[in-house]
Amino acid sequence: MLRTLPTFSAGLPLLCALAVAQPLGAQTRERGPWWPSVHGPRDQAGASNYVTPAKILAALALPKTGQTYELGHPYETSMPQYGSRPYFMNVLTRAATRAPGDPVIHTEYFTGYIGQMGTQFDALAHQGRYVRMADGSVEGVFYNGFTDTEMMGTANGLGGVTALGVEHMKPFITRGVLIDIAGFKQVPTLPPAYEVTMADVRGALARQRLTETSVGQGDAVLFNYGWAVNWANPSKYNDSFIGTGENQGSPGIGAEVANWLIERKVGLVGGDSCCVEVRGPVPKESVHHLLFLGHGIPLLENLDLAELARDGASEFLFLGLPERIKGATGSPIRPIAVR
Amino acid sequence: MLRTLPTFSAGLPLLCALAVAQPLGAQTRERGPWWPSVHGPRDQAGASNYVTPAKILAALALPKTGQTYELGHPYETSMPQYGSRPYFMNVLTRAATRAPGDPVIHTEYFTGYIGQMGTQFDALAHQGRYVRMADGSVEGVFYNGFTDTEMMGTANGLGGVTALGVEHMKPFITRGVLIDIAGFKQVPTLPPAYEVTMADVRGALARQRLTETSVGQGDAVLFNYGWAVNWANPSKYNDSFIGTGENQGSPGIGAEVANWLIERKVGLVGGDSCCVEVRGPVPKESVHHLLFLGHGIPLLENLDLAELARDGASEFLFLGLPERIKGATGSPIRPIAVR
Amino acid sequence: MLRTLPTFSAGLPLLCALAVAQPLGAQTRERGPWWPSVHGPRDQAGASNYVTPAKILAALALPKTGQTYELGHPYETSMPQYGSRPYFMNVLTRAATRAPGDPVIHTEYFTGYIGQMGTQFDALAHQGRYVRMADGSVEGVFYNGFTDTEMMGTANGLGGVTALGVEHMKPFITRGVLIDIAGFKQVPTLPPAYEVTMADVRGALARQRLTETSVGQGDAVLFNYGWAVNWANPSKYNDSFIGTGENQGSPGIGAEVANWLIERKVGLVGGDSCCVEVRGPVPKESVHHLLFLGHGIPLLENLDLAELARDGASEFLFLGLPERIKGATGSPIRPIAVR
Amino acid sequence: MLRTLPTFSAGLPLLCALAVAQPLGAQTRERGPWWPSVHGPRDQAGASNYVTPAKILAALALPKTGQTYELGHPYETSMPQYGSRPYFMNVLTRAATRAPGDPVIHTEYFTGYIGQMGTQFDALAHQGRYVRMADGSVEGVFYNGFTDTEMMGTANGLGGVTALGVEHMKPFITRGVLIDIAGFKQVPTLPPAYEVTMADVRGALARQRLTETSVGQGDAVLFNYGWAVNWANPSKYNDSFIGTGENQGSPGIGAEVANWLIERKVGLVGGDSCCVEVRGPVPKESVHHLLFLGHGIPLLENLDLAELARDGASEFLFLGLPERIKGATGSPIRPIAVR
Repeated sequence: MLRTLPTFSAGLPLLCALAVAQPLGAQTRERGPWWPSVHGPRDQAGASNYVTPAKILAALALPKTGQTYELGHPYETSMPQYGSRPYFMNVLTRAATRAPGDPVIHTEYFTGYIGQMGTQFDALAHQGRYVRMADGSVEGVFYNGFTDTEMMGTANGLGGVTALGVEHMKPFITRGVLIDIAGFKQVPTLPPAYEVTMADVRGALARQRLTETSVGQGDAVLFNYGWAVNWANPSKYNDSFIGTGENQGSPGIGAEVANWLIERKVGLVGGDSCCVEVRGPVPKESVHHLLFLGHGIPLLENLDLAELARDGASEFLFLGLPERIKGATGSPIRPIAVR
Repeated sequence: MLRTLPTFSAGLPLLCALAVAQPLGAQTRERGPWWPSVHGPRDQAGASNYVTPAKILAALALPKTGQTYELGHPYETSMPQYGSRPYFMNVLTRAATRAPGDPVIHTEYFTGYIGQMGTQFDALAHQGRYVRMADGSVEGVFYNGFTDTEMMGTANGLGGVTALGVEHMKPFITRGVLIDIAGFKQVPTLPPAYEVTMADVRGALARQRLTETSVGQGDAVLFNYGWAVNWANPSKYNDSFIGTGENQGSPGIGAEVANWLIERKVGLVGGDSCCVEVRGPVPKESVHHLLFLGHGIPLLENLDLAELARDGASEFLFLGLPERIKGATGSPIRPIAVR
Repeated sequence: MLRTLPTFSAGLPLLCALAVAQPLGAQTRERGPWWPSVHGPRDQAGASNYVTPAKILAALALPKTGQTYELGHPYETSMPQYGSRPYFMNVLTRAATRAPGDPVIHTEYFTGYIGQMGTQFDALAHQGRYVRMADGSVEGVFYNGFTDTEMMGTANGLGGVTALGVEHMKPFITRGVLIDIAGFKQVPTLPPAYEVTMADVRGALARQRLTETSVGQGDAVLFNYGWAVNWANPSKYNDSFIGTGENQGSPGIGAEVANWLIERKVGLVGGDSCCVEVRGPVPKESVHHLLFLGHGIPLLENLDLAELARDGASEFLFLGLPERIKGATGSPIRPIAVR
Repeated sequence: MLRTLPTFSAGLPLLCALAVAQPLGAQTRERGPWWPSVHGPRDQAGASNYVTPAKILAALALPKTGQTYELGHPYETSMPQYGSRPYFMNVLTRAATRAPGDPVIHTEYFTGYIGQMGTQFDALAHQGRYVRMADGSVEGVFYNGFTDTEMMGTANGLGGVTALGVEHMKPFITRGVLIDIAGFKQVPTLPPAYEVTMADVRGALARQRLTETSVGQGDAVLFNYGWAVNWANPSKYNDSFIGTGENQGSPGIGAEVANWLIERKVGLVGGDSCCVEVRGPVPKESVHHLLFLGHGIPLLENLDLAELARDGASEFLFLGLPERIKGATGSPIRPIAVR
């Protein structure tokens, strides 16, 4: 299995062991540096496959009190958007007549980036990477070798992508593990462009009386950076504005921690920042790519883990049910922890 | 507590015992025929309040195998819409450069009736009823006395309603009960405008080795009409086209069954038709109003219960997590049963 | 004919001579302080009625060189918006196959405030004023007595208003007159909240060798404030941000000049600011209301008159063809001057 | 100048004289079968360049009575759409307070295919054709050699195309010529897939006391097929449904007439059908491509010429002012004739 992908950041060395070991001609739709997936050729469910009935039963046995935690933010006009994205919702009233006893009916009309706004589930169609294929062409390739060309289809994305849409993700009813980095560092929030290290992870786990091997196959692993306190301040929160105003990026994990999560075969990775991964002025290896491309591990972005951290929760039943929006690259989601 | 609301269907007798017993002047914001709610004055969570930690713990103990069932349909362009409603989604590609190693990023832009499309969770802001108030004005009033005027606010619904939005609903992690009416009737699907009776409910429960009192406080009660087989045929499925083409309405419960569900203090009512309630050429008393107005019981529409019925499921862990879209009248949802 | 309308600005004296002379009971749908219109009861075309065939023929005779001037700004994402309004446009590509000889087809999907963005034609459905009617109710009333209730209809504005929509406006093929206030004042741009006076108008006309009576029935009268230089700076340009940042309002005419325009029976009034009328920290009598309500004179906002002023144009053929968008309150427009 | 383009319709012979005469290597961005344009390399205004000040002055002299004709349909929900395209418009009301004297403000929110709906002006960015370029790649190429890749840019069409957008079109204030084919044929409407021939054109012109040379440089040439009578019947009108229901295509011109129009150096071609050109079960050479690619002649679709034809108008002042929507492939338009 490939650990290090070709990096795309200008100025960084191109780390591409497999691409060296593997001649150019091998990068076909069937076989390339990060495909086929361990979940089988043409699999589209990725690490959600780890959420088996047995895993579910074990997770359902975790709660002791039935207390629930909302792990996401509500969707609203004022929330931070990644760049300039419309979020428009208008409630309409219908009332044919207005005599006492008559019904009054409300519906709402919405415009926006439905799968990539606020607390969101990032599906495997969200990001890929350009690769030179055996025939010399350059293709965007996603998880399991699906190409941009086939995914966009003849409708060029109208109605959604034709592969790796979020509807392929199995429901996450699984064990959740919180790794409270801000708590370990004893700060309310990590600094803007701070990259969480494995030493931080080990320290945080130890503080929570867990070890590296406490994180297991199919778990939903959630990182508390304390960054959610900036949610009400979009220009600071959102790393799409790095370098403007007070924005210097956001904290998150990097390749080191991502590779450990891959080793542990986790089902999902989440965090309370825009991108889960560290973002700052200096580009780093893409954690999105490390998790998505070779391993089909989806992301959960823009969480709010303050309450969970405050209550010292470490493991819990995690519920994450992305909407089955056909061909979407992500989904709104209401992630819940039950203790 | 009011059981029978003033009906609004032309030609039906006005059943409004309490409104008679209660002089006109009493219908203020604080007090009227169906408010304040049993859940407390100005409560906005309705019957989701029944889903207590104890109820959650009990529900989590139900599954024996960990097998999951999808109870909804995917969202897609071809799905039946209630009337003429846009559903537009286009996946966009961003790629600043296209050299090998560069990222390719997809997002999707969406336009539609976000809270009232496909498999949907109907919140308490969705429907109200006009009432003559103490000051002589006619007001649309919703659950717990919230008025249309205050809900729409000075922005007239832009950004959502200011009360009873779906974000107030607590997560449904509760006991689910399937009542398989089509199975009891031994038909693949009920006839178009068929009203399910209490005799049907009793028969179906008996066939499933349950009784009327097997349904309890906070349960999610789901009715299988077998109607989901028409999903691929929007003009037949969708009752907004009653009287056109082959459309003669859709099956569902009526006031008789709704009043029993209210007595049982259920948390949620769902079904595999557009409206859960019977719809046909002859208008009947509104089940939406019976459940919403006095009791705050939300609805789950356009389900697909075929698999659950086929496997003979009667009770199960039900997961229903409406998105917290601020001020929305409903939400897309991915309801799941776990056995 | 009513000249002074009841003002709505807090702290200003209520000037409402006619409302005093006219008892409350007279304010019915048929008759009130500013209706019926001089253009006839229930007329919906307002001052566009002044653009008669004879007026058109006379205007077509004005040009001597055939030189055209663009009087508006292009529509684009970066343009100033009045408040927070989405402007989203995405060009889609369709190409079933990509063999040499095959077609490639582009279309564009748009979301926005189609009638109220950028260079815009304000129709008579755009603004009205609340009035206490004979039956004691308070109604929004527009030009010629059309009420908000009837205009919004049972669909509550879905699909457009049912009266006074921009589609009722006759095409403006008429004489245009530029009144160059900035030129007269010898400034590149007027100060933010400057109210143009009749003395300014007379001075500007004299400088252009015109008099007050040079402005006549059905003319399109365009005021150059020099304000278009701020177009590239939305936070300064747009008066919806008065009091924030560097924004102190925008220049324009007030009631004094508006009443003169009404006397001259002009067909249309335009200017190179957001609102044509003066906007600043101190609310003034609404020029929109003076022109719309009693006289049906539409507005043309966010013009760019720099070139026309630079070339010393005073009168010209004016072409203004608002789109016939059924039920819209305004329209995008490409106003042109021909000399 | 190229007259016959490579055809793309399956089963038709590939007519590509120039492509044969010109070796593959010549098809660069600078030079290919249909570029550079006669209007100069990298010109983006196409045949609107023919509308010179002299042409404008001559056209303004045509009207004798000042009578105006609306040549388009209003935009509304019920109008025929080409395929499944949303058209959504909702008028919103804003009213901070509702005391007598307070303002009530309406705006409208719109979603749709802004440049490609109803009566529309088709700009040169709307259609191109795939070509094998000198470097072996296959590129979509448009008027004057602009490629799909450069037009879509790194934003992939978000915010509009970067070349050939409708904003480059000069205003059409020009001589209009009606060619009344239905009148000549003495039928209310031409048959569905009828291709108008040069014999028809000559016959129609003769009936109108004109000849082939009466049509000249920069003219707006409008064909009356009588097809607008089907406007209220979208399933019949709109050729995107060919072969379904009663739809058998729509009438229009073919390559023969298009080539004559090109010879006459017309400025614009319009007609009262979806596509101006003939559409039916049998694919024919694309008139869109003939007019757009080599000659930059835009199209005006979905006109209503019934009144003009009824009054026996042959030449007139034509006003066509497409909105300057940056990067759009077309525009709504309100075309007007003045006699």
